[in-house]
Amino acid sequence: MRWSKISDAVIRRLPLYLRVLEEVGRDPDVKLISSQELGDQAGVSPALVRKDLGWFGEFGKQGVGYEIAYLASELRRILNLDKEIPVALVGVGSLGSALVRYAGQRYEEEASFNLHIVALFDSSPNKIGGNVDGIPIWPMEALKEQVAEKGIKIAIVTVPSSSAQMVADQLVAAGVKAILNFAPVQLTVPEGVHVANADVSLELQRLAYYLST
Amino acid sequence: MRWSKISDAVIRRLPLYLRVLEEVGRDPDVKLISSQELGDQAGVSPALVRKDLGWFGEFGKQGVGYEIAYLASELRRILNLDKEIPVALVGVGSLGSALVRYAGQRYEEEASFNLHIVALFDSSPNKIGGNVDGIPIWPMEALKEQVAEKGIKIAIVTVPSSSAQMVADQLVAAGVKAILNFAPVQLTVPEGVHVANADVSLELQRLAYYLST
Repeated sequence: MRWSKISDAVIRRLPLYLRVLEEVGRDPDVKLISSQELGDQAGVSPALVRKDLGWFGEFGKQGVGYEIAYLASELRRILNLDKEIPVALVGVGSLGSALVRYAGQRYEEEASFNLHIVALFDSSPNKIGGNVDGIPIWPMEALKEQVAEKGIKIAIVTVPSSSAQMVADQLVAAGVKAILNFAPVQLTVPEGVHVANADVSLELQRLAYYLST
Repeated sequence: MRWSKISDAVIRRLPLYLRVLEEVGRDPDVKLISSQELGDQAGVSPALVRKDLGWFGEFGKQGVGYEIAYLASELRRILNLDKEIPVALVGVGSLGSALVRYAGQRYEEEASFNLHIVALFDSSPNKIGGNVDGIPIWPMEALKEQVAEKGIKIAIVTVPSSSAQMVADQLVAAGVKAILNFAPVQLTVPEGVHVANADVSLELQRLAYYLST
């Protein structure tokens, strides 16, 4: 079974815990971490660490803490990061290209960043056939075939707002199950498909709120 | 007074509501919106819309809905978006440059995107003195002066992980109150300073979770 009722907020913190565990785990002499330390480094309370992890099982021992290597491997399994995940990116503009390089760097540097951008798509004829860091740019017509061939389940959308929904529809039709959307529009997708909005303008607007608190 | 106990999750949805209101409000014949429609377009339940807005006052009338122009102007005021906010960006690499262009486009296109990137900073001598879309790149030594002179309160950090904390410390010392951090590290800042993490790798890792639900 999967834990389908677990809130998005909990899932959002798991990769953060994983990153802390991997950093702490680089020191071969450190085998255990307390919820206090894990929380401190992840920027949340120890009680929240225990509650979040408690959704998935009994990973720690009271008064002892968590075994770093074991908890990291369990989190990788829960997050499906124990195997490589092929990712597509649609919209190879300046933001798209920058994200390809950024994700490529994470992929190289982080043990658990098992997400690999393997195909790029664009509608502009003068981009098609080119590449970013060696990853080929395909026409939208090749989407379905490439998604099937490479087993792509996650896509990053960096197209203009006006075409984002159309692109999302094409991705869903091709079999993509999760979309990271950078276009400043709310995408409508069928049940079973998950959308995360990485909308920089919303993040900045929300930060403005805190200027007067 | 400000509503300092209101959760981050609520604040996160306000710019989304504002965007819906502005889109719907483009039609001069449409004056009112129901919580149902506002929720539908923002991707949340109508009950949550009413609850979120209820933190800030009585904006709607039962059975009538919300007056679009009034609610939009109230949200702009709550979010401090009723006046222009000067923003700095530190780290003019490929992601940083792309974000400058992206934010510039939002600033041009969206009435309520009152966030304006006015100064860029980098430590690399061959970038300093250059510009992105006409916005000058300053050395880090000019940070304090530029922040004071331009009244900068928000900064975007797109430097490598290894220097992100140092940059955050310099920003805080210069008087910046909110940081949008793209570096994949947890920043430590004093109370009164707000950090939002726009970590693309965490977003992608979290999406991987949903591949098996």
